[in-house]
Amino acid sequence: MQALIFDLDGTLIDTVYAHVLAWQRTLTEGGIRIQAWRIHRRIGMSGGLFVRALAREIGREISGDEARRLQDRHSQLFAEYLPEREPLPGAVELLKALGRARVPFGIATSGRRPDINESLRALELPDDVVVVERSDVAKAKPDPDLFLACQKKMAVTASEWFVVGDAVWDLMAARRAGMLGVGVLSGGYGEDELARAGAFRVYRDAADLHRSLDDLGVRI
Amino acid sequence: MQALIFDLDGTLIDTVYAHVLAWQRTLTEGGIRIQAWRIHRRIGMSGGLFVRALAREIGREISGDEARRLQDRHSQLFAEYLPEREPLPGAVELLKALGRARVPFGIATSGRRPDINESLRALELPDDVVVVERSDVAKAKPDPDLFLACQKKMAVTASEWFVVGDAVWDLMAARRAGMLGVGVLSGGYGEDELARAGAFRVYRDAADLHRSLDDLGVRI
Repeated sequence: MQALIFDLDGTLIDTVYAHVLAWQRTLTEGGIRIQAWRIHRRIGMSGGLFVRALAREIGREISGDEARRLQDRHSQLFAEYLPEREPLPGAVELLKALGRARVPFGIATSGRRPDINESLRALELPDDVVVVERSDVAKAKPDPDLFLACQKKMAVTASEWFVVGDAVWDLMAARRAGMLGVGVLSGGYGEDELARAGAFRVYRDAADLHRSLDDLGVRI
Repeated sequence: MQALIFDLDGTLIDTVYAHVLAWQRTLTEGGIRIQAWRIHRRIGMSGGLFVRALAREIGREISGDEARRLQDRHSQLFAEYLPEREPLPGAVELLKALGRARVPFGIATSGRRPDINESLRALELPDDVVVVERSDVAKAKPDPDLFLACQKKMAVTASEWFVVGDAVWDLMAARRAGMLGVGVLSGGYGEDELARAGAFRVYRDAADLHRSLDDLGVRI
């Protein structure tokens, strides 16, 4: 039996670009200039690592207080930029099909509540689906903790665990968790970037993955 | 002697992600759902081709009137999302250095006035620099017209013409114009995507290109 763990932002919900612009605006307001594409390539990684990378980039320390203020302002701007959450094509149908076929799946995200609540609602998930978020673990992606915690909480015996994600951080964390990484382009990375980070297969989006589940040996 | 033609958005100015989100919001308001990453990969191409691709994607015609209304709403949201225009790292310095060394350069963009006015101002260009924009030619990128018009208007004799751009559309148009394409990652494409579209070299951003001008045989 196979089991799947999905990343959320950029994999199931179309939020990556709003996150990028909200971060850039937040940082600009705080006097920190970072190019949008550099932010893009760090979305989905641990917030702590993001702040460390940021500090290195601007050449000074960022205090815990400052990091929290930035995080709060980001959440506010993110909600302004993206008032509604749109599931990526095929995401809702894919999860429903997995549910019908009793293929176990969970969600593991570097995002936090309440930021992620609207996204989870938009996906029309069954009540009993396992969701592991940032505050459930000590270290987020690319550490494997989120995926391992999700696996443990799902409490199913599977011969193969797949991680589906749009970012290199998902694929690195999957590898460290001993799971097979599957990439999707819907977060805006290039195919080769995902393949080089260890993606076993790369699909356009959830709909494309749905059509190709046989490739992974998943029977629905 | 070498001459260089630069793309604007994503190459010299950090505007791509704001364009993506402004387009997505404009289209959502108009009842058209398109994933952000699909928009991202079409930024910098001709607006006419963009609308045709859009029409194919949503499975219905888009009239000239509707296209103009969408374009206007996009401009409005773009200005809201990005009140100030930020040159990409090293862009201003690179252009100044080329000017000092009397290496001829111009700018050729699929963007239009007045959208691009603020960007040009932020780059602190000399008054006599050649700028060719969408309304100066019949067909924008990936057609070669913008680069050929820029070359003609610059009226210099060069043994080698380089096009510097962040999108596959720049590189395809460069090839069709008989120029050498140089990619930059600052628009958010992956390196392999640019290389496969014909980039002779790929640099991180304008600052990285500046440090590497010797590779292109440009003497400053």
